[in-house]
Amino acid sequence: MPVFTAPTKDQQFILHDVLDISSTDIPGYSDLDRDFTAAILGEAGRIAEEVLAPLNKVGDEEGCTLENGVVRVPTGFKDAYDTICEGGWVAMDAPEEYGGQNMPQIIHTSAMEPMVSANMAFNMYPGLSHGAMNAILAAGSEDQKQKYIPKMVTGEWSGTMNLTEPHCGTDLGLIRTKAVPQDDGTYKISGQKIWISAGEHEMTDNIIHLVLAKVPGGPDGVKGISLFIVPKFLVNDDGSLGARNGVSCGGLEKKMGIHGNATCVINHDESTGYLVGELHKGMRGMFVMMNEARLGVGLQGYAQGEVAYQNALAWAKDRIQGRAVTGVEEPEKAADTIMVHPDVRRNLMHQKSFTEGARMLTYWGAMMIDRAHRNQDKEADDLISLMTPVIKGFLTDMGFETTVLAQQTLGGSGFTREWGLEQFVRDARITMIYEGTNGVQSLDLVGRKLPMNGGKTIMGFFDLVKTFIKENEDHADLKSGYLDPLKQASKDLQAAGMYFMAEGMKNPNNALAGSYDFMHLFGHVAVGLMWAKMAKAAYAALENGASDTEFYETKLATGRYYMARHLPATSMHLSRIQSGGDTVMALDAANF
Amino acid sequence: MPVFTAPTKDQQFILHDVLDISSTDIPGYSDLDRDFTAAILGEAGRIAEEVLAPLNKVGDEEGCTLENGVVRVPTGFKDAYDTICEGGWVAMDAPEEYGGQNMPQIIHTSAMEPMVSANMAFNMYPGLSHGAMNAILAAGSEDQKQKYIPKMVTGEWSGTMNLTEPHCGTDLGLIRTKAVPQDDGTYKISGQKIWISAGEHEMTDNIIHLVLAKVPGGPDGVKGISLFIVPKFLVNDDGSLGARNGVSCGGLEKKMGIHGNATCVINHDESTGYLVGELHKGMRGMFVMMNEARLGVGLQGYAQGEVAYQNALAWAKDRIQGRAVTGVEEPEKAADTIMVHPDVRRNLMHQKSFTEGARMLTYWGAMMIDRAHRNQDKEADDLISLMTPVIKGFLTDMGFETTVLAQQTLGGSGFTREWGLEQFVRDARITMIYEGTNGVQSLDLVGRKLPMNGGKTIMGFFDLVKTFIKENEDHADLKSGYLDPLKQASKDLQAAGMYFMAEGMKNPNNALAGSYDFMHLFGHVAVGLMWAKMAKAAYAALENGASDTEFYETKLATGRYYMARHLPATSMHLSRIQSGGDTVMALDAANF
Repeated sequence: MPVFTAPTKDQQFILHDVLDISSTDIPGYSDLDRDFTAAILGEAGRIAEEVLAPLNKVGDEEGCTLENGVVRVPTGFKDAYDTICEGGWVAMDAPEEYGGQNMPQIIHTSAMEPMVSANMAFNMYPGLSHGAMNAILAAGSEDQKQKYIPKMVTGEWSGTMNLTEPHCGTDLGLIRTKAVPQDDGTYKISGQKIWISAGEHEMTDNIIHLVLAKVPGGPDGVKGISLFIVPKFLVNDDGSLGARNGVSCGGLEKKMGIHGNATCVINHDESTGYLVGELHKGMRGMFVMMNEARLGVGLQGYAQGEVAYQNALAWAKDRIQGRAVTGVEEPEKAADTIMVHPDVRRNLMHQKSFTEGARMLTYWGAMMIDRAHRNQDKEADDLISLMTPVIKGFLTDMGFETTVLAQQTLGGSGFTREWGLEQFVRDARITMIYEGTNGVQSLDLVGRKLPMNGGKTIMGFFDLVKTFIKENEDHADLKSGYLDPLKQASKDLQAAGMYFMAEGMKNPNNALAGSYDFMHLFGHVAVGLMWAKMAKAAYAALENGASDTEFYETKLATGRYYMARHLPATSMHLSRIQSGGDTVMALDAANF
Repeated sequence: MPVFTAPTKDQQFILHDVLDISSTDIPGYSDLDRDFTAAILGEAGRIAEEVLAPLNKVGDEEGCTLENGVVRVPTGFKDAYDTICEGGWVAMDAPEEYGGQNMPQIIHTSAMEPMVSANMAFNMYPGLSHGAMNAILAAGSEDQKQKYIPKMVTGEWSGTMNLTEPHCGTDLGLIRTKAVPQDDGTYKISGQKIWISAGEHEMTDNIIHLVLAKVPGGPDGVKGISLFIVPKFLVNDDGSLGARNGVSCGGLEKKMGIHGNATCVINHDESTGYLVGELHKGMRGMFVMMNEARLGVGLQGYAQGEVAYQNALAWAKDRIQGRAVTGVEEPEKAADTIMVHPDVRRNLMHQKSFTEGARMLTYWGAMMIDRAHRNQDKEADDLISLMTPVIKGFLTDMGFETTVLAQQTLGGSGFTREWGLEQFVRDARITMIYEGTNGVQSLDLVGRKLPMNGGKTIMGFFDLVKTFIKENEDHADLKSGYLDPLKQASKDLQAAGMYFMAEGMKNPNNALAGSYDFMHLFGHVAVGLMWAKMAKAAYAALENGASDTEFYETKLATGRYYMARHLPATSMHLSRIQSGGDTVMALDAANF
């Protein structure tokens, strides 16, 4: 069975050595000292290792089944779900008034990580509840919040998001699901929704569907979409459950991965729905929760990379095959472990340096969200809006690639089910697709986020990089190993931005043909900056006489690999971007 | 169900417009005119489309089953296998004296391609026979050839390669399977072999296993390995089948993809084996067939890319979602097709320009093999030896990436089983692993092939590039679109070679840490050269008044994309290579 150990020490390093969270001015952060986060991350890690990881393969092999409208989840999932609920892990960031603990986003995010590594398909059940809860918190009425949120926080009820329809995914303006107003203020909803994760199951007493639908007579396109609460069981005023609603699972999707999660066709046959927020303005509530949801998907990407890496490493340390080119290392054995081979090392370092950098970027992003919400910091809010498509798109692309590299480390065994690597590949693959495909992320980045505030926000990011370099370039090792390559990569990013400004004005295809490369270019610079921050902290720890020198030296060596071997991708992306849209758009559609 | 159309026109373009095969001096090529290859490729394409493609999903979903030692293949496979045999497709390149048609490698390769695209798992059954047959042809005695080859050529008997054991894959020196000489000149073979593709089934009357084993008392390591023929049923002198041999299927591997192919544990319990070639020199026969086998795996890589691309394209032309950024294109519809979006175009062009370039490289490689064998051309033999790890490693990495990109084109539908894209991804994944992992290919390239003939062979490749550029640079469009980027990429490749020479001497890790990037760098330059050759042919056709101008214009536009958008990867690979081995090897194994 695959191994997994929660990366608690690496997490603590980021939270305290690098971000020094308990010293910031973000409300709620002052309590987050080392002992506090150690307790939380330790327990989250324990559940991940002991409860969730052992169910990952079970979930993959059993999958979910549908019989007479009833969805059965894999063996052990219900018990694990109860464990998660009992520990209060579903939504500890929810407001205290609805039963939550008002934990900062950074705590929710870091606690979630090992659970996602251990069992991504399982974690989507509480994950989807969390998303649905956030939509209600963002756009619902006080009555709705009081009625639904507390039971979603405890996990007694779960939640889903009903967006996609067979003919419409990205372009939600095409939605056909209809919501017809009734005399009592409710709506009758009719239509079919597909790919509804955690859409139906019996682990909870009720399921609260958040449904996008169109009320007849409203504006065309996305401006005519409204958001509804559609509970599986209607909820009486006293909170007890009433009649079964006209919402049902019409089928389970057969898919490449995340078999443990029920991906449902959800049919609404005049189901009763309750309007959330304003009529025709349902997209607003969606957008509010999107930064956080997409950050969560980015986390899924690298978290699958993390567990895959751990298994690749375990294999590489154990497998003996061939001899070191620089001379036999273990003469008493028939062969050396494959750790001696430079190409195996390259592969492992590629994985390791990415996942650690990605973690840092994600936690930093979570802190920006906290700063935005808790300090009402507009700049932080804009910055995380800018970075959200990068975090989602780049971390999931690279996270998937990491699982593929890890699988490759095992050779033939990586292709077999037995070792579990191929499941990580299959599970990670979805992260590049859902919550907006990565192509859509790149469009959001270049089309919407770059021009934000007249370009001030992206300039703000460049300033972050420049300032960090300037403030630290008197540290010779930090400069040569980190700041110099970061400066070069950042120049590539700026040049790409300049290209878009100059050429995108003439022809928007010139910018959009480069959007995907820009997302990756940006991702590398962002992770490069994060590694520079981690290196600074590691050097500081060593210079301050930290006892665990090996940990910090390892951190520095890992970061140097990232700067030397990952970052050169920026020049490739810039070249592609600067080649413009002509080669991309040259063919008539008919000539493909 | 996924679509597939054999790319006959593109194949013909390469064989005739570019390589002009019937005009070369290679024995047997003068017969290969347009009509001849049209007939062969047309029929191969028809079988691929009508017989094999419809079974691809069946094979994936049913897989193979083992019951009481009997392996059952998926529904329809036996009939399809009979069709392949009746048409003489198993080994038309076999010598006429053993029932083959003595067809050149380039014909076998190009005819095989659509079948591999249509159903890779199925095609491995005749494919493995072909490999086993080649090993006997290369190293067997005349008696052995007469006894086994004719029935393998007809497909009445199939073949396998028994190399891997649980503890040894790449490092075959560790083999434990024992072959004990008997008084009658045969050997009793005992041991367990794993991952034996097409290892057991009932589609053929007999299965001829080619088995690597050690005869006690021989040299240690690979120098003590011998090669044996171990038939499932012993073969009497009159060619009739005798007793069941002590070789059996001990289990079927559960794996990520190629479910339609039986991947077997093969147990040898004192099975009777016949020595092939010299005692202790079994690796020779293996190496002779390796160039061709690895070329075949490279083909599998891009062939899966090809079918995946076709399905991505079909989706993109049909799916409507969003509007063109440059203005609505189909106002009569609720949305434009996604073909209007630059990022969808980029994705499709990335796929298309790779698979077409990869096909050209593969056919060019097949021609080198023919030249080597049929003209006893040592230079061609060396050149294809040099290029073999590039063709295998680069085309399978990029072929897999192509299937992932194609899957992405479909968004959520790409993740579902229904559309079949996810199967192409899972099937293509194995090509990066078997027949020597791509990491091992890169070691072969840098450690063994680069230094070949004191560097003369790689210099010969550079000369090919230089000469082609020089001879054609008076064609202004060819120069700007193709030759200039090729020159730049080739410079990167040369710089990488120089780095290895200078730094690899000091520390071999400096070269080996860059081997994987070198393989990709080389692959891009090679495919770049191939695109330049195709462009030259396309320009020539247009200048000579070819009627099908759209075809040639499309070819040129596709090639320009490759040069503008794929080739910039060379600078990234060079940077990584030149960063050396230090960051790769910095950590102690214990500190990972």
